[in-house]
Amino acid sequence: MKKKLGIGVDIGGTNTDFGLVDAEGNIVRRGRLKMAGYDDVAVYVKDLAEALLAALGELDAEAEGIGIGAPNGNFHTSCIEHAPNLKFKGIIPLSEMIRQYINVPVMLSNDANAAAYGELIYGGAKGMKDIIMFTLGTGVGSGVIVDGKLVHGFTGCAGELGHAILVPEGRLCTCGRRGCLEEYASARGICQTFDELRRWVTCYTGKLANIPLRGLDTKLIADAAYAGDEVALKAFERTGFLLGIAAANAVAATSPEAVFLMGGPVQAGKILMEPLEKSFHEHLYVSFKGKTQIRVSELNANDVAILGAAALVKMPR
Amino acid sequence: MKKKLGIGVDIGGTNTDFGLVDAEGNIVRRGRLKMAGYDDVAVYVKDLAEALLAALGELDAEAEGIGIGAPNGNFHTSCIEHAPNLKFKGIIPLSEMIRQYINVPVMLSNDANAAAYGELIYGGAKGMKDIIMFTLGTGVGSGVIVDGKLVHGFTGCAGELGHAILVPEGRLCTCGRRGCLEEYASARGICQTFDELRRWVTCYTGKLANIPLRGLDTKLIADAAYAGDEVALKAFERTGFLLGIAAANAVAATSPEAVFLMGGPVQAGKILMEPLEKSFHEHLYVSFKGKTQIRVSELNANDVAILGAAALVKMPR
Repeated sequence: MKKKLGIGVDIGGTNTDFGLVDAEGNIVRRGRLKMAGYDDVAVYVKDLAEALLAALGELDAEAEGIGIGAPNGNFHTSCIEHAPNLKFKGIIPLSEMIRQYINVPVMLSNDANAAAYGELIYGGAKGMKDIIMFTLGTGVGSGVIVDGKLVHGFTGCAGELGHAILVPEGRLCTCGRRGCLEEYASARGICQTFDELRRWVTCYTGKLANIPLRGLDTKLIADAAYAGDEVALKAFERTGFLLGIAAANAVAATSPEAVFLMGGPVQAGKILMEPLEKSFHEHLYVSFKGKTQIRVSELNANDVAILGAAALVKMPR
Repeated sequence: MKKKLGIGVDIGGTNTDFGLVDAEGNIVRRGRLKMAGYDDVAVYVKDLAEALLAALGELDAEAEGIGIGAPNGNFHTSCIEHAPNLKFKGIIPLSEMIRQYINVPVMLSNDANAAAYGELIYGGAKGMKDIIMFTLGTGVGSGVIVDGKLVHGFTGCAGELGHAILVPEGRLCTCGRRGCLEEYASARGICQTFDELRRWVTCYTGKLANIPLRGLDTKLIADAAYAGDEVALKAFERTGFLLGIAAANAVAATSPEAVFLMGGPVQAGKILMEPLEKSFHEHLYVSFKGKTQIRVSELNANDVAILGAAALVKMPR
């Protein structure tokens, strides 16, 4: 009998990365398709399926199932719906199209949901049943797991905590509303907080004084903070304070065992995590205090998108 | 064969109310125990069980199960845990104690969770699978239902959205933290908003000008608003605006089909509901816009606690 492997597919605007995953969560084979070459989704799906079948063939394995993390991936319909950063417009019945070539269960969700489920199956949340994941990056995504299952809700799009409003009448968000968590805890939000702070501190003469906002990134600010720049340090403190409130608010809804965090800004380390942990525990409601952890993802940043997608197939149905 | 009836028990600081409930959600028999008479929980449980058995006997019925809504009721342990407004201190294994007398499934949860489940089984959410309930009153409670089940989470205490922080560094809450929804959307919160507004409007000469804060209630303010008091009207507008944000934030977590509201302040009618609905729909993230309703509970206010508790027994296990 051929050995069974999970398949995780991570669809992004630039590349589609895929991996064959064994039962222990090791990615035993990887592959990539460059999206630039595809204007026609039918051609894309055919090439993807052929690449997956070729990889399986080389390992003399068969697919247990295929999990896909994709922007605007709707779990209920298994379609990609109006993804702004893909060339494939409208509603794409991706799972059904792939099943024309490989007839196994195909599960589709968005990337943050997939990351949350990957943490549960392969990462630091192994053995837990209730978690929330925040993915910090260009934006802020999230995934909510209740009783061992991803929550998709009525629309199939649950877990958009990056667009929960943290500061009523606060910063204008790219989504058109004001005060979303994303505007404070994404890489962009941290840069903006630093920019505001350095303008309030009229005597700021640090190394970043002459770098315009659009030239900043979280690594530059973190490096400055570790080198003793108090304004840079304060920017991470404020981010940690606000993200701690957002994480504690999320706990009030579904009472997870742990909140996990991943993504670029988390790489800043203790200058973010110390104020974040302090704020989180201070802002937990009494029923959850001392019973809820806040932790950094234990999945390798390069693997998480593939592992998360592959994990989707393991979800109880 | 005897007919089967559900039993709903609503434990409060002053009374325990119970009802026998038929399959259509009619309360066919009611009863009450006054809590003042009970210092010893063992005596209380014995009297409660005897009252339930007597009521069943009179209708020649037997119990299908017993659902209990109680302050600090923990679903996982089926214990009342350190309820501040009950005389029974510490951890009370209530379900186990009742089963000594009536050997049927006994389910325990807090009152807002029970109300949410009652709406799903007997109220306006019939046929839905994902809802969130906000109960407005002295405080603000909530219940979250995902895929037809109440969410209790790791601690058993999920659904405390009244203590999600709506305004970082905002009003001091009775729970010791700042800016909880409860401080803005409870009866107390609405009175405080009115009190702040009338002090900002230095020329306020309305009917409520000389009533001190502690003499106000939401009915007085609502009556003034309907009589043309613009400050009173503004207090409800601001409450609706903020509660709309809180409700939209809750949607970002679990994406319910509808958010339901019940409780005293909701009786104010359109002066609250119109600004609330406007704010809710404006503050919904794009994935949920046009797909998520906000509605008033369809359960009779006098029945909801008993129906909600009785409904707990119907939850899939």
